[in-house]
Amino acid sequence: MAAQNHVHEKPSADRINTVVSELQTMFGDRLTTNMTVREQHANTTTWVKPQPADAVVYPETTEEVSSIVKLCAANRVPVIPFGTGTSFEGHVNAPYGGICVDTSRMNNILDIYAEDLNCRIQPGVTREELNDYLRDKGLFFPIDPGANAAIGGMVGTRASGTNAVRYGTMKDNVLSLTVVLPNGDIVKTASRAKKSSAGYDLTRLFVGSEGTLGIITEIVLKLHGQPEAISAAICPFPTVKHACDAVIAAIQYGIPVARMELMDEFTVRSLNDYSKLDLPVSPLLLLEFHGTEPSVKEQAELFGEIAAEYEGGPFSWTVKPEERSKLWKARHDAFWAVKLLRPGVKDVPTDICVPISRLAECVDETRRDLDESNLLGPIFGHAGDGNFHINLLIDMDDADEVARMKAFMERMVHRAIDMEGTCTGEHGIGQEKRKYLEIEYGREALDLMLTIKKAIDPLNIMNPGKIVTWQEK
Amino acid sequence: MAAQNHVHEKPSADRINTVVSELQTMFGDRLTTNMTVREQHANTTTWVKPQPADAVVYPETTEEVSSIVKLCAANRVPVIPFGTGTSFEGHVNAPYGGICVDTSRMNNILDIYAEDLNCRIQPGVTREELNDYLRDKGLFFPIDPGANAAIGGMVGTRASGTNAVRYGTMKDNVLSLTVVLPNGDIVKTASRAKKSSAGYDLTRLFVGSEGTLGIITEIVLKLHGQPEAISAAICPFPTVKHACDAVIAAIQYGIPVARMELMDEFTVRSLNDYSKLDLPVSPLLLLEFHGTEPSVKEQAELFGEIAAEYEGGPFSWTVKPEERSKLWKARHDAFWAVKLLRPGVKDVPTDICVPISRLAECVDETRRDLDESNLLGPIFGHAGDGNFHINLLIDMDDADEVARMKAFMERMVHRAIDMEGTCTGEHGIGQEKRKYLEIEYGREALDLMLTIKKAIDPLNIMNPGKIVTWQEK
Repeated sequence: MAAQNHVHEKPSADRINTVVSELQTMFGDRLTTNMTVREQHANTTTWVKPQPADAVVYPETTEEVSSIVKLCAANRVPVIPFGTGTSFEGHVNAPYGGICVDTSRMNNILDIYAEDLNCRIQPGVTREELNDYLRDKGLFFPIDPGANAAIGGMVGTRASGTNAVRYGTMKDNVLSLTVVLPNGDIVKTASRAKKSSAGYDLTRLFVGSEGTLGIITEIVLKLHGQPEAISAAICPFPTVKHACDAVIAAIQYGIPVARMELMDEFTVRSLNDYSKLDLPVSPLLLLEFHGTEPSVKEQAELFGEIAAEYEGGPFSWTVKPEERSKLWKARHDAFWAVKLLRPGVKDVPTDICVPISRLAECVDETRRDLDESNLLGPIFGHAGDGNFHINLLIDMDDADEVARMKAFMERMVHRAIDMEGTCTGEHGIGQEKRKYLEIEYGREALDLMLTIKKAIDPLNIMNPGKIVTWQEK
Repeated sequence: MAAQNHVHEKPSADRINTVVSELQTMFGDRLTTNMTVREQHANTTTWVKPQPADAVVYPETTEEVSSIVKLCAANRVPVIPFGTGTSFEGHVNAPYGGICVDTSRMNNILDIYAEDLNCRIQPGVTREELNDYLRDKGLFFPIDPGANAAIGGMVGTRASGTNAVRYGTMKDNVLSLTVVLPNGDIVKTASRAKKSSAGYDLTRLFVGSEGTLGIITEIVLKLHGQPEAISAAICPFPTVKHACDAVIAAIQYGIPVARMELMDEFTVRSLNDYSKLDLPVSPLLLLEFHGTEPSVKEQAELFGEIAAEYEGGPFSWTVKPEERSKLWKARHDAFWAVKLLRPGVKDVPTDICVPISRLAECVDETRRDLDESNLLGPIFGHAGDGNFHINLLIDMDDADEVARMKAFMERMVHRAIDMEGTCTGEHGIGQEKRKYLEIEYGREALDLMLTIKKAIDPLNIMNPGKIVTWQEK
């Protein structure tokens, strides 16, 4: 288990000072060592304890990023890429200090290729900025993690969201990347062709690599035409199992459902309290269908028939935008509704993903475990992908509760892996889930990941302490 | 350009003999050194000159493959993975000798997970075998390169085919792999969950790696529900540009076309001669739509309207199976029709892929170049992906013609790359397209591929001389 013990040490103050002072010369007021800024960059929406970098720098071009990385490589100082800091697993922490490279000023939309349904952007563009820009062009970008994340960060964590069941994840929606490697080399991973068999899949090597193999400085993303029509639906089921069976049947039938979100009874109950709704207190599916007018009608009706077979109902659907918004507001309110059950405590989100045949069983066992552990949290998720979340509400000052939370999370991961699933569907590994990689993949596969990391980043300067770590000799 | 000069040498006869004699003990009559068999394994459907391995072995399990690889690693003898040998670019050649690992006896379908829409198979299962097996289960596997290839080989070359515009390529349809690494380690690349953010994307690292990083011994594939209804359509257009514009419009409109195949005028003319048809002699699109009865009707009619906007027509569509078969027979006959224009010569297939906005221009320039080069070949392809093929008909004994062919192919690749495309959309790099990788990706990206290859296969025993090569010190 040597690879799980990282004994890397912080660079000496001399080396840090050399890099910071050179960067000051190069970047002027686009370099800061202000402690508040550094702490913000190590801890935004996560419960993981902040470990600030020694400085934060704001490059604007690929070449500037390359010069930062070259300087850090020459002095063996860590480089921590930063988008919006909305990840959950400690991805932006700097356990060995170093330079935080904030890409927020690299936020230009460079090209829209409407005919090819793709675009070229800088990594600091957020998903909402991109969609605002695309709105009057009849195009959209479907990947929607909860936060308004920077697209660069979404590439890094292989993000997905509610639309993944139809449109895939970041893995499926990135055509090509420009990456600054740990030696400062600038690499373009692919052409703008829709597909290619030309050599190793460098694009997918970087998607999900969490900044540990390089910094993404340009992205070619697939886009999609805005659907002519959208219908939304809501349907309660007697049990989570009934809801999941309906999901499986709909997918097998080939209904191209765009969104298929599950909320458990606990979540629905809190929502009714919070939003003064009278949703039936039972597991609930929220759905969305994209297509032409006749097609979204057909899809919704077909799903209604399938839901009835699995004792779902009353099933209601609509194409009216205001009614659709109301339905989806419920989904978004869930987060706040549950937060208010216990104000002032920390929100600890975690996620796993299992084959959908095991989803109901996994959700039920997890809910039971949650209750038995005397922990509070809604279960909701992307049922069509077998991916679900719990946002635990934890008093981080209560050592016993924190211990129960950690034990619960560990059981949750083991449960997923035992069901042929994964320890994270969309949040990533970061610092907190490193220990599960060997359990999920086995020693040999983890060694392969280490081999890749060591070959591409032999000095271990790129976001060290994330995904894979090793004991230096 | 050192990396493009491989000066690897064949292992000594002693080392080869040691390995062959050990394998004989282990595998008995599942090991052969018969020259006819060895030559068949180096050259099946390709025009590339055969370079036979020293022996062919037929393992049946992952563990057997691992023991072969360990033995070869210990003696530094090359290992060449073999499926059905239907690739085009010399992937199964053994330029440095070694052991050909024929996976044809690893042809078991291990598990069908109908609810999860995936299955676990051995790599020697062919795509037709899989679909025959799935037929009465209401499922199908959509990736269809022309040949009845082994799925393991399709993983290796990142294959696609006519359905890719809707269902993606092998990259999108492989969930997980079991791989024997160059050191004999057995690695599982992912769980059976539909998505994951857990560490590096090992699955995509091997998809398209052409056996140069390991041998695939088990595959978890995504499956799809058989569509309730299928409609097929045919539509001539005045020019390739008009046809491509209709394709672009259909994709932008969001019509989920399953197949969208382009044939150029030359191809149609030969087809009329060969099959006694009276297709309009002009560029032609063949289409297929999958969905419910009303949906395939709607899709076909919508496409008809779009085609009319781009002067396409007469547009005819049908849901009747016998009429559908007739339409698609035309597509499949194209290959034979053109072959008969010049019997006895070699068929030399090649492919490129460009952003679809450039497809018409690329096809037109390529046709002009073909005619000016006095070469014969149909242009047809997967218009929805921007991917097209030419099957050149070449007298390989005519040195001048071969020289013209090679110069033409080189211009074709440069044209694709200049249009932000790739030197191969689905055939792969093998031996013949190695020289284009640096042109397409640049030196730094090619160095990154080399870094990966050297780290994972430091002895360079896995299918050496394919994709990336380097000069030994």
